Amino acid sequence: MARPVQVVVLGAGSWGTTVAGLAARNTPTLLWSRDPDTADEINSEHRNSRYLGDRALPSDLRATSDIAEAADAADVLVVGVPSHAVRSTLSEISNGVRAWVPVLSLAKGLEPGTRQRPTEVIAECLPGHPVGLLAGPNIAREIVDGLAAASVVATQDDRVATALQPLFASPVFRVYRNTDVLGCELGGILKNIVAIAAGMADGLGVGDNTRAMVLARGLAEMTRLGEAMGANPRTFAGLTGVGDLIATCISPASRNRRVGEALARGLTIEQTLAELGQVAEGVKTAPTVMELARDYEVEMPIAAEVEAVVAGRRTPAEAYRGLRRVTPGDEDDMA
Amino acid sequence: MARPVQVVVLGAGSWGTTVAGLAARNTPTLLWSRDPDTADEINSEHRNSRYLGDRALPSDLRATSDIAEAADAADVLVVGVPSHAVRSTLSEISNGVRAWVPVLSLAKGLEPGTRQRPTEVIAECLPGHPVGLLAGPNIAREIVDGLAAASVVATQDDRVATALQPLFASPVFRVYRNTDVLGCELGGILKNIVAIAAGMADGLGVGDNTRAMVLARGLAEMTRLGEAMGANPRTFAGLTGVGDLIATCISPASRNRRVGEALARGLTIEQTLAELGQVAEGVKTAPTVMELARDYEVEMPIAAEVEAVVAGRRTPAEAYRGLRRVTPGDEDDMA
Repeated sequence: MARPVQVVVLGAGSWGTTVAGLAARNTPTLLWSRDPDTADEINSEHRNSRYLGDRALPSDLRATSDIAEAADAADVLVVGVPSHAVRSTLSEISNGVRAWVPVLSLAKGLEPGTRQRPTEVIAECLPGHPVGLLAGPNIAREIVDGLAAASVVATQDDRVATALQPLFASPVFRVYRNTDVLGCELGGILKNIVAIAAGMADGLGVGDNTRAMVLARGLAEMTRLGEAMGANPRTFAGLTGVGDLIATCISPASRNRRVGEALARGLTIEQTLAELGQVAEGVKTAPTVMELARDYEVEMPIAAEVEAVVAGRRTPAEAYRGLRRVTPGDEDDMA
Repeated sequence: MARPVQVVVLGAGSWGTTVAGLAARNTPTLLWSRDPDTADEINSEHRNSRYLGDRALPSDLRATSDIAEAADAADVLVVGVPSHAVRSTLSEISNGVRAWVPVLSLAKGLEPGTRQRPTEVIAECLPGHPVGLLAGPNIAREIVDGLAAASVVATQDDRVATALQPLFASPVFRVYRNTDVLGCELGGILKNIVAIAAGMADGLGVGDNTRAMVLARGLAEMTRLGEAMGANPRTFAGLTGVGDLIATCISPASRNRRVGEALARGLTIEQTLAELGQVAEGVKTAPTVMELARDYEVEMPIAAEVEAVVAGRRTPAEAYRGLRRVTPGDEDDMA
């Protein structure tokens, strides 16, 4: 009988905890939290009150605050810390992860300065390991509540994704595969910026037509940048592109959408982030995406407006005038 | 000075009236209503209370119930009657429309029996005329209320679309162009079926993850059928595809979404349509789309479930079990 695969998830935020809970129903799973109190609470009370309120986690899920113990135990390593913390976290365990262990990213932001995607940072920190990601329209709280959802495991080698699929899947959590790691990862990163734009629209009281226009035009600019960077444009029409975009833009729980809404209510970005109390990846990512747009010579008017609002150079009302300002032309050409 | 272009819109439902109101701000416009009382109300009170409540229409907009007068006046003919009425309506005026007059469809359903798209029916009824369509994420009431929106004029000859663009555009109604008439038209037709599925999901109380999954997988099957029929798959990622899909699936006003919601509340299809009091194109189109799916050998599991519910062979709860039943595989292969 084959030895069971031990999944280790680094990072006990809402999504890291949720993914650990999914895996724990299929295979032994260990969740690393930097905060010992959170690890204790998960072990003794089977919940993570800071991020998931009273929701019950599987009683089989174990947690630790000892990152060396976590690294040593991993047959599959899931990186669930925020994008800006991926490099520093993995640097603590670069000699502690066993050979061949596949590493899956849950992070959805670019590293400022290097502009690297999380899988690129992981590949630098843990060279030689197969690297991929798990992404899709996945609001964490709904999944903990047992509502149905679908997600994608993306790895360059389809055999790795095929082996990882059953570790996370359940009757109400479908896991698909994709080999376009770049496209799947960019979808999750870029959608956060469109979600801020959608939140601003909601805060300004626009209608469903405008909301749908922002999402469709936002998807178009995500796809343009992705294609220029070498991704398959069709990936953006899938779960990790339009799927994640829609969930993020319609869910009241989405952090990036809430950032846009708070900005439209007149809060500053500092007040907004203080009110949120959690990381909103789109805020940090927006300037880096605009650097990429310039380098690849791709028009991204929605991302440009979001970046200007987040940087405090423009108000949401001014940005929304801007979003509607372009003279319409051919649908493919235009922003 | 060039003689002004007279726009004639056939059909004074909510969308036909709205498009006539957009045109009336740019050029002389005449709206044909089969019902003389509606035509009188538009002329004397500048509103269409049956379809648009108390909303004010432009005072320049004229209406008539004389279809021969309308046909004779048209420099541009807009066909805004429901899909099932396009052929019978145009047969009344097949000798009354002047040569060269371009004809734009607003209809979003397939003709039962012939399975023809509205532009195909128009081309048969009015041979020799340039035929195209106006489509996009356009909830009629929001546009009458002056909220911002975007739309697409699709014609095979880009010069025709370029000439038509300014007739409908305004500072808050952007009009783009596209030459993929087939793709734009199929987007508007097929999205109604996904909207019924999304409404069933809402009625069953699913979460935003499931809603996003249904939209993303629904978009994938729309794109698959469109590509098999010869459309450009990218069109489905634009305003007439994903844009119209999102607006229809999130708007409380969308008729097809409301059909799905009513069915999930346990009403029969007859009770649902009686409660609605308006045409929901997706109900009539679903069986025809399933015939196309079989002919083109395209997997459309969401459309298949909607068709089964609409035909009374399955309940929404059973369909939703069905929608989640497929074993996940490669993202591109699978439903």
